[in-house]
Parts: sequence; C-alpha cells; structure tokens
Amino acid sequence: MSAFTPADDAFAERVRASFGRQKFMSMIGARLVRVEPGHVQIELPYRDDLSQQHRFIHGGVTAAIADSAGGYAAFSLFPADATILTVEFKLNLLAPAEGQTFVATGKALRSGRTLTVCNLEVAAVADGVTTICATGLQTLMCLRGRPDAPPGT
Amino acid sequence: MSAFTPADDAFAERVRASFGRQKFMSMIGARLVRVEPGHVQIELPYRDDLSQQHRFIHGGVTAAIADSAGGYAAFSLFPADATILTVEFKLNLLAPAEGQTFVATGKALRSGRTLTVCNLEVAAVADGVTTICATGLQTLMCLRGRPDAPPGT
Amino acid sequence: MSAFTPADDAFAERVRASFGRQKFMSMIGARLVRVEPGHVQIELPYRDDLSQQHRFIHGGVTAAIADSAGGYAAFSLFPADATILTVEFKLNLLAPAEGQTFVATGKALRSGRTLTVCNLEVAAVADGVTTICATGLQTLMCLRGRPDAPPGT
Amino acid sequence: MSAFTPADDAFAERVRASFGRQKFMSMIGARLVRVEPGHVQIELPYRDDLSQQHRFIHGGVTAAIADSAGGYAAFSLFPADATILTVEFKLNLLAPAEGQTFVATGKALRSGRTLTVCNLEVAAVADGVTTICATGLQTLMCLRGRPDAPPGT
Repeated sequence: MSAFTPADDAFAERVRASFGRQKFMSMIGARLVRVEPGHVQIELPYRDDLSQQHRFIHGGVTAAIADSAGGYAAFSLFPADATILTVEFKLNLLAPAEGQTFVATGKALRSGRTLTVCNLEVAAVADGVTTICATGLQTLMCLRGRPDAPPGT
Repeated sequence: MSAFTPADDAFAERVRASFGRQKFMSMIGARLVRVEPGHVQIELPYRDDLSQQHRFIHGGVTAAIADSAGGYAAFSLFPADATILTVEFKLNLLAPAEGQTFVATGKALRSGRTLTVCNLEVAAVADGVTTICATGLQTLMCLRGRPDAPPGT
Repeated sequence: MSAFTPADDAFAERVRASFGRQKFMSMIGARLVRVEPGHVQIELPYRDDLSQQHRFIHGGVTAAIADSAGGYAAFSLFPADATILTVEFKLNLLAPAEGQTFVATGKALRSGRTLTVCNLEVAAVADGVTTICATGLQTLMCLRGRPDAPPGT
Repeated sequence: MSAFTPADDAFAERVRASFGRQKFMSMIGARLVRVEPGHVQIELPYRDDLSQQHRFIHGGVTAAIADSAGGYAAFSLFPADATILTVEFKLNLLAPAEGQTFVATGKALRSGRTLTVCNLEVAAVADGVTTICATGLQTLMCLRGRPDAPPGT
C-alpha cells in the first residue's frame, strides 16, 4: 500500500502515456510493470547490445531504467497539467548487472510542491535468484502548467 | 597537459580496445574522441531513439556516456593487467540535453592504488552553441590481476 | 535482526572505543545508542550552538552524525585489525532539522572485502513526533592492518 | 571574475549577516574569507575538538564548511527577499583532512529561478602545502518572500 495520495485520479494513464513517449525505453526493450502512487517498476530483459566490456548490462542502462522508474514514481503524484525534470541522481553499483531480467524500482520518499525525492533500486534476476545490483537517490522537479508531451504531438 | 603519468605506456590502445567491447556504446553511436592519461572524451550524435518524452536525450543516455568517459579516464591510469568497476556516480542535470551532438568528458581528480575519483561533464552542442547539460562525480575501483575482457574473447 | 555476521566478536567494544576517540562527536553531545552488526544509531540532543540561520540544526551537523552512524555500521563488520575511511556520501535534506532530538541511523546494504555501502537516515523528534529529515548513501573503505587509533594513544 | 550578476547589490552584506546567524559556524571557528557573486570561501583553523578518531578533521565538519560555502555562493545570487535551503549534496573525501587550516570553496555552476547547483571543494593547508581533501556537488533552493532570519530576530 502506498503512503501517497495522487493529485490526479488518472495518474496511471498519464504515466503510461508519458513512458510510451520515451523512445529510448522502448528501444532498449524496457516496459512498465507496476504503476502505483509514488511507486513504479520497470522491467528490462537482458540484451547483448546493452552490455559493457564484461558482458554485463552497462551502468548507463542501469541508470536509465532507475531514472525512469524514479521519475514516473514522482510523476504519478503530480497534478494533471505538470511535467517533470530530473534534477540529479546518485547511484551506487553494488554488484555486476548480470542476469536475464532487470527490475528497476522507484519509490517516492518525500513529495513536495516543487521537489520530490525518490529511492531507486535495480535488481538483477539470474536463474531465479534476485540480487540488488544498484541503489540510489534521485531529486525531481514538478513543472506546473507545462505539457509533458512535446508541441505538435 | 595531463597531471597524471600512466602506469602503462599502451594505455590508449587498452582504452580503445575496452571501449570497443562496450556493445552499448557502439549501439547508441557513441565514439571515443579523446584519450589522454586521466582525460577521456566521448561524442554522441543525437538520435531520435535515444530520447525521452520531451525529445531530449534520455538522462540515462547522458549518464551512460558520462559513466564511460569517467571510467576510461580512470582506466587509462591503471596497470596493464587490471580491469575497472564503477563504484558509484552522481549526476546533476543542469539543462535539457538538446542539440545535435553531445560530448561527455571524464577527468581524473585523484588516482589512488584502489580508488579513482573522476569529474564528469556532458555538453550539448546545438547549432554551434555549447551548453553544459550535466556535471557529476564518479568513484571507480581498480581490480588488479583481472582481465578487462570476458573469458573466451 | 541483522543480515550480517561480524568478522570480530568484539565488534561492539571496537565501535564504542573508536567512537569515544571522535572528539567532535563528544563535543557536539552525540552518543551511540545502538550498535549491532551493520546497524548503528547515534542520538544528538538539540543545542543552540549547532544551528544555522533559521535555528535548525546545521546541515553539516546532520551530515556529521549520519557519516559517523554509517561509518560505524560498516566498521562493526570489519576485522579487528582494520580501520575505516569514508570514500564519499550523499545526503538529501528532506525536511528542516527541527526538534529536541536527532537520531542518525547507518545500515550496511552491502559489505565487501574492500568497500561497504551504507544507507543513512536522520530523524528529528519534535514533541514526540518523528520526521525523517535526511536520507543518504555512503561508501566506506576497509583498511586492513592499519590501527584505528592514532600512534601513541 | 565571476560569470554571475547578483540580483541584489547588497549581496555581500546579506551573505555576511546570514553567515553571522549560523551559530555552528562561529562555534567551530569558521569565518568567511571571500564573498563574490556565486563564489564564497570559508576558512577553518584546525582544532582538536573537531577531530575524528585519527585526529583529522571530522568528515561532518568538512561537509559543514563545504555546505555553508556552497549555500552562500548560491545565496549571493538570490534576490533580497529570499532565503535558502540545501536540497542535497554529495562529497567525495579525496584525502585525510590533515593540516593547520581548511578552506572550503563554493562556486555556482548554474543559477536558475528556483534551483542553484554549486561545485564544492575543501582544501587542507599543512605546513604551507595545499591538498584538495574533498570535492562535491550541491543543489540549493531559493525560497522567495521568506525571510532568511528567524522570526523575532
């Protein structure tokens, strides 16, 4: 159960529509698997073209799914007419991103009028065993009265 | 001029070979444009499939080229028989990653036996005008006696 | 219950002795209130001379008790002959540090041979109500064969 | 020369007055030594009661002077009727804080209407030799129409 009440009842539709506009997420094969108020999960199957020199998932890909999971956890709590900006994030890479599936979880810790702070976690699932491979913190900004979609879309 | 003396004369070849093994870098179209001791630059042309919902480059892609630039800045100072691990990084996104070309710069600030700390910066070039769109700090670990290439390659 | 097994049975004595050598902790009035393997809490009563311009506890004091809590959470898992170094930490200040008592909690998330990563949290207790005022992540290094006390003590 | 134009001509007086209200800064013996638009330095002489277990300056004290230096670098660019909040900061401790004098420098990298991002650096001066002992990044928030001094002062 979430501790947060969304400002907009249609939060899940807004999150899914915005995620659908992130071409990078669909390009790497990431998909939204959980959308609750202040709590979002993204799943990414392993792909060889997402790897670094040791054949693990590249740290930037780990960061990308963590950034989007936290961003949408924050965005789910925003009013309907707002868009979002990642101010900053920090990620500790705890273990190699080795496995068949990667699950990024973003959870809002504090949601204010302007800034939201999220906890980030990325888990690797290898042969059914789950290992936390990254943990992080992220600060996001709510921009009111600014559409989330680019003009002309 | 760099303040660091590389432990291995063939540092540039090692950096280029390792970067060449990062399939994610070639997949997104990133390439190494500068390899000096403790100072590496990566260039990435804009591509629509690297974008987030506002059509700017996704924060995870910005993080990916910054992580690789800092990682290879550190790796350039390592002995020949060592590989590298990103321990953690933090990125402040200062401006939208909007433009035709993105340049990530990693510079070693301190290089110790085990840990190296790098400064990260990503610049966006839009119609000839350069804007710093991200700045960060990164901690990297030197693993001696461990090959940088995966077994069997 | 802790998920970590300490390398040294006398971990609590080592933590208390080292904390006792941190003159800054005793100067500000901080004391250890919990020492378990990978889990340490420090309590600090409010004092006017620890404040910033709004009369809340200074962010640096919040950082100091968080840094020591995380440092000793890591140190509790180290072998008897090792000392510790904070590599880096990041703190999000979620709410003003306003209250009569502040409790910093450090918890190890991952403890490796060389590096330990801790979660940091600082809570403010004001008139019996507890508010999380800071959350953070910290990376610590284990230095084996190096005494924790300075020479001649 | 600074790249920033202050919004308020009396910025230096405002910075000095606010710093004067930070009781923690005067308690540890820190003083402002440089106040330019977006660029502030704080000096701290070594004192035994500011030390950790190795007799170096405690990481929290290093963080405190870095946090205040960056905070006032940002505050120097704010309009006259605004106060400031540290949103978050990250610090890499590059070398032991060992010496007779410590100099924290905060420099604004980007100053927006709501958020300012600063670079942080702490140098240790030991027998005339300067060593960078910490580097960091900090995000600050401008709160307009809110006095920097607490009520009744």
